[in-house]
Amino acid sequence: MLIVPESEIAALVSPEAAFTAVEEVFAAMARGEAYNFPVIREALGEGRQYGFKSGLDRKGAVMGVKSGGYFPGNAGRGIPNHQSTVFLFDPESGRPTAVVGGNLLTALRTAAAAAISVDRLARKDAKVLGMVGAGHQAQFQLRAAARVRDFERVIAWNYHPEMLPKLGEVAAELGLPFEAVPLDRMTEADAIVTVTSSPAASLMEAHVSPGTHVACMGTDTKGKQEVEPALLARARVFTDEVAQSVTIGEAQHAIAEGLIAEADITPIGTVIAGMAAGRQSEDEITLFDGTGVGLQDLAVAGAAVRLAAEKGVAVSVTI
Amino acid sequence: MLIVPESEIAALVSPEAAFTAVEEVFAAMARGEAYNFPVIREALGEGRQYGFKSGLDRKGAVMGVKSGGYFPGNAGRGIPNHQSTVFLFDPESGRPTAVVGGNLLTALRTAAAAAISVDRLARKDAKVLGMVGAGHQAQFQLRAAARVRDFERVIAWNYHPEMLPKLGEVAAELGLPFEAVPLDRMTEADAIVTVTSSPAASLMEAHVSPGTHVACMGTDTKGKQEVEPALLARARVFTDEVAQSVTIGEAQHAIAEGLIAEADITPIGTVIAGMAAGRQSEDEITLFDGTGVGLQDLAVAGAAVRLAAEKGVAVSVTI
Repeated sequence: MLIVPESEIAALVSPEAAFTAVEEVFAAMARGEAYNFPVIREALGEGRQYGFKSGLDRKGAVMGVKSGGYFPGNAGRGIPNHQSTVFLFDPESGRPTAVVGGNLLTALRTAAAAAISVDRLARKDAKVLGMVGAGHQAQFQLRAAARVRDFERVIAWNYHPEMLPKLGEVAAELGLPFEAVPLDRMTEADAIVTVTSSPAASLMEAHVSPGTHVACMGTDTKGKQEVEPALLARARVFTDEVAQSVTIGEAQHAIAEGLIAEADITPIGTVIAGMAAGRQSEDEITLFDGTGVGLQDLAVAGAAVRLAAEKGVAVSVTI
Repeated sequence: MLIVPESEIAALVSPEAAFTAVEEVFAAMARGEAYNFPVIREALGEGRQYGFKSGLDRKGAVMGVKSGGYFPGNAGRGIPNHQSTVFLFDPESGRPTAVVGGNLLTALRTAAAAAISVDRLARKDAKVLGMVGAGHQAQFQLRAAARVRDFERVIAWNYHPEMLPKLGEVAAELGLPFEAVPLDRMTEADAIVTVTSSPAASLMEAHVSPGTHVACMGTDTKGKQEVEPALLARARVFTDEVAQSVTIGEAQHAIAEGLIAEADITPIGTVIAGMAAGRQSEDEITLFDGTGVGLQDLAVAGAAVRLAAEKGVAVSVTI
């Protein structure tokens, strides 16, 4: 069994590598070669959340589970509140093959999903990137999205405006002008990434212009909400996994209000695999509901293990 | 993170240690200090089964997941068809603390559960142990049960009688006379352990005498069955976890036929914790439906880690 520690991931897995791994597994899901097992999610008390996301990718020969959770007491002890570890197994024999630090990988795979949606669904001539949210994950989203279009500037809004300068530093690194704006100026954006942990809609239908692509990355549980449900009714809606989208994703609200039906939502893997159309006109709004599936975690962890083995930084232990 | 390899378990975890660990966690479950998360179980095709059992024991400060499955192609490659690995986490921080080989532990924790039921529910003067089933797991069951009563002899039946001599060797090691018998001679037994993977009842009501304790250890999924449902109607029924007992345990059939109700089933932890009565008369039949819960796996894995750390055989790795 190989161990790939958290500290090695940054040097091993680039945003490009994460993009490729996640794109491949989304396509494998669409072709029925990969599927996610049911998700376990448990409240442990005192705000702590823990759970397991697992799945099997026959094509990539990856089976595994990500354990992950939120432990609000960690920051005070100098370790991240979000804790993830990925365990991989040989799908032929069930033998454990790897344990991989999953904290950075979780950020990379989430950013990769949004970037894949921008790549497949935003207009080719998209120039303005809008960011709703400016936390830790927003930085990864910005870096990943900037790879797939020639954006000329970034506009951003956050519920806590004091966090925006940190995101501005990332834009500066990428050579992109950055401006903090009110939400109604999001109409200037050609692509918008929302990445908040909000319980109520921030981005309204009126904030989004025709032809925009919106990637909603923050809603991964019941009760969270980033955008007005009317925006989903107006948009063509895509997702990583329809079952999650309608229950715990951004679409849960539009579904509950009867504004859209499950059949209106297209798995993005079917676009990648050439089984469904992506953007069909310059004017339509496309919206990607990124809920986060276990197979994304397994895909980037699998990439980390391959790269670690190549570079000789994986630690081999007998189990 | 500590690694405790499969090869170390036999020297670390005795049947006594497994008995104590499982008894403590059953009691913690009864007191509401420990609970199992939902079970994931997936058919992978070609007869392969894989899944995850997980839980939290606040009292023992253990959180974790056992990945386990059945891979019928393994035997041909010289590795066990049943593959289990246990992953433990710090419930306060979510950090991974240990990876433990889970194959032998699974056998030990299952045998411990049956032995706990014999210890708590069989008559003190039980002299004859009946075994229904003679596979690999039956050997562990026999060893564990023999620890808790002064049995004078063992009688055994198996669907494939050619497997009985192997179980007889274990009885001989324990100094117990061993006799292969037809099922209707199980009336001679004071305690019976059934441990088969049968899809239909082997042990009938008529095969069990008044005052007997029966531990049904083989039924852990829909469709398996070891005993006639009428036996459950006649017995006082105990289990590790009621939710599993009525859905995937031996009680699924008696429940489906309306012979017993969920409220008729007593968690054995409540007996251990002194919250419910065990055996109430010399004549009643008691029956333990051992379905196998994740917390049992975590409990014995936690014991393995403690013992490995004490003996200095755990391998420490950075994750």
